[in-house]
Amino acid sequence: MKPFADRLDEAAVRSGSLVCVGLDPDTGRMAISDVAEFNRAIVDATSDLVCAYKPQLAFYEALGLDGLRALGETVQHIRDVAPGAVIVGDCKRGDIGSTAAAYARAMFDVWDFDTVTLHAYLGRDSVEPFLERADRGALIVCRTSNPGAVELQDLELTGGGLSGTLYEHTARLASEWNTRGNVGIVVGATYPGEMAALRALHPDMPFLVPGVGAQGGDVAAAARAGVNSDGRGIMISSSRGIIYASEDAGTFANAARQAAETLRDEINRALVGGATTAG
Amino acid sequence: MKPFADRLDEAAVRSGSLVCVGLDPDTGRMAISDVAEFNRAIVDATSDLVCAYKPQLAFYEALGLDGLRALGETVQHIRDVAPGAVIVGDCKRGDIGSTAAAYARAMFDVWDFDTVTLHAYLGRDSVEPFLERADRGALIVCRTSNPGAVELQDLELTGGGLSGTLYEHTARLASEWNTRGNVGIVVGATYPGEMAALRALHPDMPFLVPGVGAQGGDVAAAARAGVNSDGRGIMISSSRGIIYASEDAGTFANAARQAAETLRDEINRALVGGATTAG
Repeated sequence: MKPFADRLDEAAVRSGSLVCVGLDPDTGRMAISDVAEFNRAIVDATSDLVCAYKPQLAFYEALGLDGLRALGETVQHIRDVAPGAVIVGDCKRGDIGSTAAAYARAMFDVWDFDTVTLHAYLGRDSVEPFLERADRGALIVCRTSNPGAVELQDLELTGGGLSGTLYEHTARLASEWNTRGNVGIVVGATYPGEMAALRALHPDMPFLVPGVGAQGGDVAAAARAGVNSDGRGIMISSSRGIIYASEDAGTFANAARQAAETLRDEINRALVGGATTAG
Repeated sequence: MKPFADRLDEAAVRSGSLVCVGLDPDTGRMAISDVAEFNRAIVDATSDLVCAYKPQLAFYEALGLDGLRALGETVQHIRDVAPGAVIVGDCKRGDIGSTAAAYARAMFDVWDFDTVTLHAYLGRDSVEPFLERADRGALIVCRTSNPGAVELQDLELTGGGLSGTLYEHTARLASEWNTRGNVGIVVGATYPGEMAALRALHPDMPFLVPGVGAQGGDVAAAARAGVNSDGRGIMISSSRGIIYASEDAGTFANAARQAAETLRDEINRALVGGATTAG
């Protein structure tokens, strides 16, 4: 059973891409109204261009049982069409041990995600149930790109030999929990300097990097700052910039393909000269 | 439209109880195998004894679409049988604004919860979509009762005029966000001293207090520490201690009733002499 970090690396090598497509179905913006059909078209159009897909659970939950049924169909379709791709369940759960064990069953057994995003606020026992199978991983939310991110994440710590910020400490805890090669962190694209510092401290952990596209992060800077010494180890995630590149039923899939290809190439160009993603 | 805090207060006055029953269906422990039927029996047996019910979403999600269907049926049954009770969706979500808006639709429109538990790690814009309707509330996770709680929550802060711990600062942020009377905090029962200090600083915010029963918190101490100046303003939540009081199909509902009654009485006895919950 390969550790999650190795599976992600294989997905990047095989696809020659560090792009993760966020599948956030918003009925107000989707070019066609059926969620599963919309996602199928996006996946079909991008499967050779990306290393990962990331359904954001909120958008499925907002549509009730129909939305969740479409989530199940979407995951199955990705397995069929892009069997090498990593599927990230962006759920940002975080609860006490017995509850976390139930969430791990939901995310890994019910939905069949390869990895999930988690909050670390409840400490190690809230994350542990997600780490028991080395091939499935947990991505700990450290540094986000939204306006309110600074309110807690940038708080300065003191005492107990600690210094630095809460997000830096959260990354340290994630690294301590990474005994099986299946823990990573979530680091927003809008802070490449901070991402570079985190990468220097944590050379091996995978980074999930949301915040390019609609959230405004600089792709090239984020890519250079986030990659590991092999020039990989990150998933750069774009949702709205890809899946809503066109809101027209006739062109959205092709527009998504073009947006994913543009993002892939922009990342790979930024990394030329260093190690590359080409396998 | 009454603010959430007032609705909770009415529920406590009307029921004469500060008990919240956690509905955490664990198929390994349920006396009968059908989740909706199990919950209906628990609700029917306890509806006159409690001010709130708290489904923990993880346990429904772990059962897939069937579990979520049972969640919907459970909420509807509570509305029918205990229309005055507050329904807490224990989901501990926390995400960027557009995603948080989707979660708010899921929790309030799809599942019809009165309030939800939330992580504050992403700051104000991650909570704001849950606060737009004053009658629906958000309970910010501050201090939990699990072993790993200390790893982040007890971190000492410095700089920017701050001191004290991360959980104290989280409570302060919750209080700042409470401009419509619909923000509360989650404070585990195992730290009554810390709860009393939080209550002194935040006289008006509702407290959701998990951690009695299976998690070992002292009920009387938690009740005395947590109540507001009216002797109310808290929901003391027990899940396993009530719903699995008996694991026998013939007796579980009655055992749940007895456990809920015992907890209600233990809380009310602890508060005698101060303001009481009797309406």
